Amino acid sequence: MYNNDTNLQDVFTPQEQNEFNDYFIFEDISVNSTSSFTAVLRRYQDITKWHQELDVAVIGFGGAGACAAIEASDAGAEVTIFELASASGGSTAMSSAEIYLGGNGGTRVQKACGYEDSTENIYNYLKLCNGEQGDDDKIRAFSEGGVSHFNWLVEQGVPFKDTEFKERAIMVTTDDGILYTGNEKVWPFNQVAKPVPRGHNLHVQGDNGGPLFMKIMTENVERRQINVEYETRALTLIQDSDGEVKGIVVRQNQQELNIKTRKGVVLCAGGFVMNEDMLKRYAPMLSKCNAPTGNPGDDGAGILMGMGAGGAAINMHEGLTTLPFYPPASLTKGIFVNSAGQRFINEDCYHSRVGNYCLQQPGDRIFLVFSVNDIGDYQDSNYMGADIAGTGETLAELEIELGLPEMSLQQTVEFYNHYAAKGEDPKFHKIPEWLEPIEGPFAALDCSLGRGAMYSMFTLGGLDTLPSGEVLTGEREVIKGLYAAGRTTAGMPRTGDGYASGMSVADVTFFGRWAGRTVAAVATE
Amino acid sequence: MYNNDTNLQDVFTPQEQNEFNDYFIFEDISVNSTSSFTAVLRRYQDITKWHQELDVAVIGFGGAGACAAIEASDAGAEVTIFELASASGGSTAMSSAEIYLGGNGGTRVQKACGYEDSTENIYNYLKLCNGEQGDDDKIRAFSEGGVSHFNWLVEQGVPFKDTEFKERAIMVTTDDGILYTGNEKVWPFNQVAKPVPRGHNLHVQGDNGGPLFMKIMTENVERRQINVEYETRALTLIQDSDGEVKGIVVRQNQQELNIKTRKGVVLCAGGFVMNEDMLKRYAPMLSKCNAPTGNPGDDGAGILMGMGAGGAAINMHEGLTTLPFYPPASLTKGIFVNSAGQRFINEDCYHSRVGNYCLQQPGDRIFLVFSVNDIGDYQDSNYMGADIAGTGETLAELEIELGLPEMSLQQTVEFYNHYAAKGEDPKFHKIPEWLEPIEGPFAALDCSLGRGAMYSMFTLGGLDTLPSGEVLTGEREVIKGLYAAGRTTAGMPRTGDGYASGMSVADVTFFGRWAGRTVAAVATE
Repeated sequence: MYNNDTNLQDVFTPQEQNEFNDYFIFEDISVNSTSSFTAVLRRYQDITKWHQELDVAVIGFGGAGACAAIEASDAGAEVTIFELASASGGSTAMSSAEIYLGGNGGTRVQKACGYEDSTENIYNYLKLCNGEQGDDDKIRAFSEGGVSHFNWLVEQGVPFKDTEFKERAIMVTTDDGILYTGNEKVWPFNQVAKPVPRGHNLHVQGDNGGPLFMKIMTENVERRQINVEYETRALTLIQDSDGEVKGIVVRQNQQELNIKTRKGVVLCAGGFVMNEDMLKRYAPMLSKCNAPTGNPGDDGAGILMGMGAGGAAINMHEGLTTLPFYPPASLTKGIFVNSAGQRFINEDCYHSRVGNYCLQQPGDRIFLVFSVNDIGDYQDSNYMGADIAGTGETLAELEIELGLPEMSLQQTVEFYNHYAAKGEDPKFHKIPEWLEPIEGPFAALDCSLGRGAMYSMFTLGGLDTLPSGEVLTGEREVIKGLYAAGRTTAGMPRTGDGYASGMSVADVTFFGRWAGRTVAAVATE
Repeated sequence: MYNNDTNLQDVFTPQEQNEFNDYFIFEDISVNSTSSFTAVLRRYQDITKWHQELDVAVIGFGGAGACAAIEASDAGAEVTIFELASASGGSTAMSSAEIYLGGNGGTRVQKACGYEDSTENIYNYLKLCNGEQGDDDKIRAFSEGGVSHFNWLVEQGVPFKDTEFKERAIMVTTDDGILYTGNEKVWPFNQVAKPVPRGHNLHVQGDNGGPLFMKIMTENVERRQINVEYETRALTLIQDSDGEVKGIVVRQNQQELNIKTRKGVVLCAGGFVMNEDMLKRYAPMLSKCNAPTGNPGDDGAGILMGMGAGGAAINMHEGLTTLPFYPPASLTKGIFVNSAGQRFINEDCYHSRVGNYCLQQPGDRIFLVFSVNDIGDYQDSNYMGADIAGTGETLAELEIELGLPEMSLQQTVEFYNHYAAKGEDPKFHKIPEWLEPIEGPFAALDCSLGRGAMYSMFTLGGLDTLPSGEVLTGEREVIKGLYAAGRTTAGMPRTGDGYASGMSVADVTFFGRWAGRTVAAVATE
């Protein structure tokens, strides 16, 4: 299995050593050591003792769980959050917490920065991002409700500054409020929707959105009548003979407790990126990556519990991959080539789309080839960690050093330069901003899988749900009493090809809230 | 939904109008019109009347169901097969029924044709074929048991001639007993295993293995004490409060019947290739293909029933795609290029691997470019149905006609020809046998998706099972009383990239038999 400490160090930058570390000591997100987790259902009729009874049990205190609990509580339900770790946060606290929102003319920050973003515009963009497996109901709801969700977040105290971060970057290093975090400006996305930035960044210096976001959400939970049980592992759902979920078994202080729910259980227990066995079985492509992104609780338990109650897990092969090859943005002027020395993508795409394409290349080598002049401050600013694979005064020299077929790279660059000089890229449609003939001396970074470059990833598959959070069977029938949100579900974002940073935190909070409202509205006897 | 008649015509060649049509009239495989199929579980304790009680209920009378029933019966169990259609056959009868087997030194046919095939050799080959998601237990068992399975088939009366069909072909047009049906001879497979043919073809003229195979299996069933109920749709499993499957509800003559099973239910109900909604949700890439291959009963019902009882469906995104671009084999000397005018595969690969790569290309065009001299009898012999997209005395002319970027195809062919003249393909490793400079006049076939070329496919995802046929939960715990085989399961073949014709019929019969033996061995009270 993956090593917890290693992961955290892979994923976090030195900037994380900041003021919020006092609040969120990541090493404190310890996992209950009870190992014999099982999602085998308990039958309602077999339970002889109920240890607790309440309206709503929310499983997991990350972004989705916090939002579900807040909304359920605000709608009058009695809520307890059960959290495996000894603190709130989940994977949301470990993220940058960019929040991808737009539509309805634009959020306050979008408008202040001079952008107009219609609902159809974001809808068209998200439709292309999610392809065949996109859930039209979720995309539509998310497009229509984005501005309202932004306003709700602001009401909860989440701060956004009305300024734009204009660099091509993986994450904001300032406190600016918005940036491009996806493929909005590039082909083919620029053919279906007007490019606007939608990645909302919290008003905090450096890449510290996640800890701040979860600090604010935790304070919101604490301010309400919401009970939180930490260091408590959800073991299995309790289902009656009609298939209705009536409670959950949790483990706390070495004891199993039967929790009866009057309204329902909301699974917000994260994805399965830390479950190596599930990755291999369900998402073989992702299992090639070397940097799983998430907290140790992303072990698939939420998905497995839902499956145990008849829920269908869908889109399980998909995930977000990232290959953070910039900054420096100047590397975008380079070209990615595979083992055949051939290009395969417009390099101005967002790094996650590039990473996804890299994963799918035949052969075992991926190089980023560029003019040495464009290396910029690669050594200091880059997150990818790829080594220099070769350099050369000429392409023929570089070809030999990289072990590429003689003439292959020379042809590729000849073609590229011929058109780049005219501001064109007829093969892959890189936009003119980044098109420039690549001149010697040349250098290449080794972005091959398994040779040092960081390929981080998390999962985008999970329980099939309605936008309301109701969990569905394989035939899309609702399972009574069972709700889910966050990476325990297949949410709005469905593909690595079309992912944009901030889609996940936006999705888990947007649909987390909705699940909270849905479960709170369940009539009790 | 797909049109039944259209599919059959797409999939079948004129040769199917033959002697076996008297026995297997495909239009007779009619689907019970009861539409409100639901896999919502019935609880054992809710059943007040049992209409029938038996040892083993086998659901589906295709290749897997037939073999499961025969083995269970031979082990002394009382067996009934419930079949949706009005005749036996399933998708096995619609296939060529090539049977992919080897190992243990070789089958009788392999040896007679001069091939030695060790167990490690087939194991190494299958490991590469199935990649990360390969099930090592199944691959190992299949490699070790192949010859024994071949002998069992012969004992049942399945005839194989000890001769080899040596052409590069999609299917045998003679009665020869063995041929290459996969990627054994090509890169990278030839790097890990010694190439040997393993596609065993029944001793019958033309592509008529499927009907003959199911005729023989049906006679074997009829010869035994096995009851068969046709035109009977399995609706849902019956499970007790401990999660054990105790029976099945079927619909027959407009009535629901509760069938109690003393030993177990074996789901052999096919895959989900005919369920457009499931394809979109689980296998978005496959849903782009225009020719689903299977019978109307491949509607996912078996998988959904299993999921309803807590079974995990895995590998659901994968399937077999075929692009039958040969015969004539001479087209293998051509090159496939994508919208960027770039090659992407060694064209000597098996057509299914080529089809799989075509599906994954960026852009919306795929062309097969070749010397007009190599067109052979394309019009008469080819199954793909692709139109001529363009011709040209020069590549520059052809480039324009195909709408490819100027210079792109010229560069590609220049590079290819330079090395082909030396018998080399440093980019994609086509073997020397097919390497020859491509000379004008040139022609190109339009193999783009959605422009007429036939992309046929079926699904390779389904219930997770042990080699024994026991169905597993998401945590790989055995569900008592429930067994499965065939395309209702994720079997031995797991990827389109590495599929070889005959893997499916071999897999469904091999593991179908094992499921039959497993369920027969269950002790009854």
